[in-house]
Amino acid sequence: MRHIKLVISYDGTDYVGWQVQPNGRSIQQCLESAWASVSGEQLRITASGRTDSGVHALGQVCSFATKSQLPTQQIVRAINAETPFDISVLTAEEAPDGFHAIRDAKQKTYRYHVQYGRIMDPLRLRTCWYVPGEIDLESMQKAAVLITGEHDFASFESAGAERSTTIRNVIDLQVTPESVHNFPGLEIAITANGFLYNMVRNIVGTLIRVGKNREEIEWVAWVRDQKNRRHAGQTAPAHGLFLDHVVY
Amino acid sequence: MRHIKLVISYDGTDYVGWQVQPNGRSIQQCLESAWASVSGEQLRITASGRTDSGVHALGQVCSFATKSQLPTQQIVRAINAETPFDISVLTAEEAPDGFHAIRDAKQKTYRYHVQYGRIMDPLRLRTCWYVPGEIDLESMQKAAVLITGEHDFASFESAGAERSTTIRNVIDLQVTPESVHNFPGLEIAITANGFLYNMVRNIVGTLIRVGKNREEIEWVAWVRDQKNRRHAGQTAPAHGLFLDHVVY
Repeated sequence: MRHIKLVISYDGTDYVGWQVQPNGRSIQQCLESAWASVSGEQLRITASGRTDSGVHALGQVCSFATKSQLPTQQIVRAINAETPFDISVLTAEEAPDGFHAIRDAKQKTYRYHVQYGRIMDPLRLRTCWYVPGEIDLESMQKAAVLITGEHDFASFESAGAERSTTIRNVIDLQVTPESVHNFPGLEIAITANGFLYNMVRNIVGTLIRVGKNREEIEWVAWVRDQKNRRHAGQTAPAHGLFLDHVVY
Repeated sequence: MRHIKLVISYDGTDYVGWQVQPNGRSIQQCLESAWASVSGEQLRITASGRTDSGVHALGQVCSFATKSQLPTQQIVRAINAETPFDISVLTAEEAPDGFHAIRDAKQKTYRYHVQYGRIMDPLRLRTCWYVPGEIDLESMQKAAVLITGEHDFASFESAGAERSTTIRNVIDLQVTPESVHNFPGLEIAITANGFLYNMVRNIVGTLIRVGKNREEIEWVAWVRDQKNRRHAGQTAPAHGLFLDHVVY
């Protein structure tokens, strides 16, 4: 069987998320039915990870095994001709035999965008979290260090998709200022060898509590060490989150 | 009477445009009804210029005369509490007696965003024009020079809102590369002492014909000198256009 690896981008606003669900249109379903139109094959397309409703992707990776002999360049064009405009296949390539988009992922990078200040940017309603008032960026940067490295991230795992271990290695976590349309904002970029359910959004919600001076910097280490979700900050909303890329 | 000048930003996607119209929700109507809720006054709010349906604003200016004594800071907060999220008042200030947002405008700057290449960016469907294939940016930059300066812009005026004169001074016109989410693109920024109806979108459509190598650079000067709309390129779509700011 031939294995194809796709890199795709999407605006997650109008979807129930990656995974096929009875209650609405999913990214997976749109891709699978696009491929069925192209090739006649009804098959399962697997992504590096499920993204929730409203979460976007700049470089999600997914894969499938096919009998089709269509060249990869034509696969890109053919699927894009069948998917809605808010989903694009960026590249298609031959993957090694038995390639699996989840199992073989070595690390992933997410980006989360926050806009703050007195006024909401009306042009980024779908793509960033508006936090009213000021944010102390430097405190967030110091707190981010406490989350970097190999830790038990149980405090940052939402219920709903438990894994065998909650230990992950956060390889890099950067909080950088980002001004768009003259509105102050920030970007949180996080790279890890794997993520628990809602881990990025729970880390963002926790760091923002520090940025709002509701908690001390050291509180983040305390939360981390509790290994209990109820101590962390709120789950930041889905629409600020982008799956940036996946490394294999 | 007290005159108030507002600077506002909006996502024009879900509006029929600035102006109150029978067939849908307009920016003007949302602001006027927000002000009515705040102050009880039913009045007309005038903008520096009407934007069409789908056109966005980063710094549109509008004004009204009021009997209200509400401080300007509170005007910002109060209107923002009443408008939909896709309209924000950025600032409010006292304007000189008799201030008029259209008549007193000295110059305006618009920005137009284009994304090109083989694949459409699914995350900028509302905010840039996707032009498939390659674009020769350098030719567009050379052609832009031919449109800069004081000219009769009749070739770039769409029917529907004729002005007494079609002579305008394009003070600055820059075509700059702009890569977003790794997709190639460009921004066309244009400053003039005034604009004819659809002038920016007609200039963009004309420059893009040169960028696509469908016409020579010099053709743009020829189009300009015809003083007849039928010779120019297509009207670029509304959703790539942003009113950036207005100078008084």
